[in-house]
Parts: sequence; C-alpha cells; structure tokens
Amino acid sequence: MRLGTYSVGGETFYGAFTQEGAIALNAAFPQWNSLYDAIASGGLDDLIAAAENGRITHTGVTHEMVMPNARRILCVGVNFPDRNAEYKDGSAQPKHMSLFPRFASGFTGHGQNLVRPPENHTLDYEGEVAIVIGKAGRRIAAGGAYDHIAALTLCNEGTIRDWVRHAKFNVTQGKNWDRSGSIGPWLVPFTDPAQLDNARIVTRVNGEVRQDDTLDRMMFPIREEIAYISTFMTLLPGDIIVTGTPTGAGARFDPPRYLAPGDVVEVEVEGIGTLRNGVEDETI
Amino acid sequence: MRLGTYSVGGETFYGAFTQEGAIALNAAFPQWNSLYDAIASGGLDDLIAAAENGRITHTGVTHEMVMPNARRILCVGVNFPDRNAEYKDGSAQPKHMSLFPRFASGFTGHGQNLVRPPENHTLDYEGEVAIVIGKAGRRIAAGGAYDHIAALTLCNEGTIRDWVRHAKFNVTQGKNWDRSGSIGPWLVPFTDPAQLDNARIVTRVNGEVRQDDTLDRMMFPIREEIAYISTFMTLLPGDIIVTGTPTGAGARFDPPRYLAPGDVVEVEVEGIGTLRNGVEDETI
Repeated sequence: MRLGTYSVGGETFYGAFTQEGAIALNAAFPQWNSLYDAIASGGLDDLIAAAENGRITHTGVTHEMVMPNARRILCVGVNFPDRNAEYKDGSAQPKHMSLFPRFASGFTGHGQNLVRPPENHTLDYEGEVAIVIGKAGRRIAAGGAYDHIAALTLCNEGTIRDWVRHAKFNVTQGKNWDRSGSIGPWLVPFTDPAQLDNARIVTRVNGEVRQDDTLDRMMFPIREEIAYISTFMTLLPGDIIVTGTPTGAGARFDPPRYLAPGDVVEVEVEGIGTLRNGVEDETI
Repeated sequence: MRLGTYSVGGETFYGAFTQEGAIALNAAFPQWNSLYDAIASGGLDDLIAAAENGRITHTGVTHEMVMPNARRILCVGVNFPDRNAEYKDGSAQPKHMSLFPRFASGFTGHGQNLVRPPENHTLDYEGEVAIVIGKAGRRIAAGGAYDHIAALTLCNEGTIRDWVRHAKFNVTQGKNWDRSGSIGPWLVPFTDPAQLDNARIVTRVNGEVRQDDTLDRMMFPIREEIAYISTFMTLLPGDIIVTGTPTGAGARFDPPRYLAPGDVVEVEVEGIGTLRNGVEDETI
C-alpha cells in the first residue's frame, strides 16, 4: 500500500498509488481535506481499506510532497558515527541528538525538481528515512516506541550548506529554503520492525552511489529518537521525524560536490521505494 | 481592537476582547475554524469590521495562545547588543541573525501557567514582541517590510535553559517543551510604524523589572528580519515572527534566577498589552 498526495490538471488529491495509476480518496472522505488531516484524525486504516477496494481515478499524475500541510517536521542531525567525525571539530560523540524543525514548504514531491536559489549554489543532498507518527504520546519508552509509528517514507533533506552556518546558533536558514528538499514518493504503512531495523539506505547522484549505510548503525536509533523527542513535546498523529543521514553528503568531499541543474538524486530503501528528484535553478 | 482565541466551558472560540468581555466571531465566519485560518485566508479586516459591530457573547473567559494552530513560528535569537556579550564566548557580533522555529504546542495563553517539567527546573523567561504576517512575500525589501505585518502580540519565549545546549547544534529541545512559553494576550492590528519603532518592552518577575529595553536597539531590526527570512522562504499570512529578547533573562544572573511555581511573569509593551503568566510544576 502506497499512500500520498498528487496533482493532476492543477488539482490536488490524496490517495493511493498502484502500478496502473492513482486512486483518489478525497471523495470517499469529505471530512478530511488532506492526507495529513486523515492521519491526524486517526483515519489511516480507513484510507487503506478504501484504497484496497478502490478504482484507478487518475493516470500520469505529479507526485507532491507526501503531506504538503504537515504541521510538524523534526529532523535529527549528525546521527551516524562517521558523520560526527566529518565535522572535524575534535568533538566527542554528543550525548544527545541534534534536532531541528523544517517547515513543509521546504519540500517538494517525488519526480519534481529541487530548487537551487540564485543567492547561493551550495545545494546539497541528504538521504534519510522519515517516520510518520500514528499514535499520540508523551514520554514514550524506547521499548514501545515503534507502536507510535504509522508509516514510513523517504526524505532528501536538501540543504543550502553555506547558510547552515550563517548565524551564531542553529541551522534554520540553511534548512528551510522553499522546495530545497523532498519527501516521498509515498507513505508505506509500518507493520513490521524489520522495515526499519534491517533497512539499508542508498543515495545516488546521477547513478553514482554517494551514501550507503544501514539504519542499525545510527548513534541514536529511531526508538530513542521517539523517546527523547516525546520527553519535551507530546508527539501527535501526523508528526514527521526525519531520522538522520549517513556520511557522504556533497559538502564532505574535497572539493565539495554540490548539486547543479541537470543532476538527478535518488534516495532508495528497499520496501519503501525510490525518491527521485532533478535540480533546477530558480528563476526570479 | 484586540483579537484572540479563548475558551469558556470547555469550548474554544476566536473573537475580540473588550473591557466588558469577549465577542465570539465563529458563528459569523463559518468558513474559518480558527483565528489562524481567518488571517491565513486574508480575513483579518472582515473580523475587525464584525467585531466593531459585535455584541459581548462571553464573560469570564480563559485566554488561549492567540493562534493555537499557527503553522509556522520563527524566533530570532541573540538580537540585542548586550545579549551577544552575555554569552561570554568572545565571539564578535554575528553577521546574520540566529533563527529557530518553535511549534505552537510550546505556548499557552495569557493568564495560564507556564509548565515546569520534572526532568529539568531551569525554566526561564524571555519577553519579546511577536509580529503576525498579513501579506505573503518572498525576497521582501527591508524598506517595504512593514507592509507585510498584519498584527502585533507579545511572547514569553519560555525556555528550559539546560536543554538548549543538549546537543551539538541547535536549541530545539530547550525551546519546544509543551506549554513552556506563552503568546498573547491578544493581537493588535498593526497600523502605524511607531507601534514598533518606538516600542519599549519590559519584563517583570513578581513585580521586579528584569528586562527593559527599546526595539530601536535591536541588532537586526524587524524590517531586516522580514527581509532576511523571506530570502529563503515565502512568508505567508498567519506566520509569526518572535523578534528577539533584551538582556536580563534569568540564566544571565549569577547565580541564575530561574522560574518556580508561584512566580508571576509579565511582559509589557504599551499599546499592545501585558502578557501575564504564572508557573506550575507539571504533574505526571
């Protein structure tokens, strides 16, 4: 089952994707204006049931960010062992994970171009697995954390690298350029711990492997991410956690290898899918 | 005119506040479920006109965070000259402003208690002016930036200070504890540059002045905040920018003076109002 958001002929729908096309679910659920609304209202199972009996309504669709109106997206930074070393600042492994929010406006959908702005050309990729919360919780124990995950998707956590270090603290302005990253191609229901525990993530640029790692090497495993984040805030259905990227982003090469128009970036995890995006220069 | 969100008898309303009570506007605008939705849809002037002719519908109301479902709240850090020095890290004045998002869940309303969690007791206050965007824009010139402001309000940008430095980067986990800050008491329409340019902000704890400064001393004036932020993201109606706090937060005293149950914090700006909050320990 693959759920997501798409557009066709200028209209936006949420629904399910099959080999043959897309099944719009909006008409069946007039109470929910978006996939985010449905998940936030606990309606994911209803959507899945409807999709299983649904008929193709559209073909040749454009994928949009899986939940374009997602309210809270939290990203985990520096979460693979070699990635801390990549910073070359002599710092020990941090005791706690680094976290930063991104707004939904910073992401486009599968198949669309990432946008490189005229102000700065250090557009970089970061392949990551993203989880979607399905069950609310505060101070969730790591042991039971997976019970709070509804679905999985992929993220290219695209970054304007120079702007990450613009200020005294915080990466906000390098991480929130309009449509500089992508989330998709769709949501896959989370039904088995092995979907995460055995996952291998590979990021390719123009077919060349740049990142290739397994989630079991995370410094802060996903169960601990959920436990830690829910210590300070109540996690709610529809929240997205972008769980961290392996080594091999473009900034870490010498000289750096940033993205340019014409490049194609793919983030792949078996069982979830492949998130593919081109790159274009913004015209203003 | 004072617009905001309130609850009474377990039900939540948006509307206007007068000396006599509150004027609910929900019934007049069924197309908008919240004050945020109304502003995001460009409906602020319609609300004001309706409020001017409205009758009191409720008295004895509880103020809620002005827009509890605000989608994007961006805070500016370290924005008064002495505040950079307060960090005592020998760093020069930064070239760019520090920015961090906060989720709406981190804020309560005027008159309600800030929540001190059991995990950490370094709950601190930061008095700030917050602006609400009324007109969308990207790459807004500083000179015309005020045209994009719809309304003003106040923020106690309450912080769990120890958690601000938990990780390698970013202040996220110290700035997003549920109901650790407040925004209110209401929105005041922005009609005159002097409302900001001549503003003086005072923060008191139990009547003792802790912060007292004027916005004209900001290192990054509000016009520049709007210009800089809109460089990387399209500002949209309903977005909130929390513009920065003067020196004098509790963490800067030696020994630090953190908030404890029974304390009362007031943030006051003439022409906007006084945001008042008590403090309570969370019971879990």
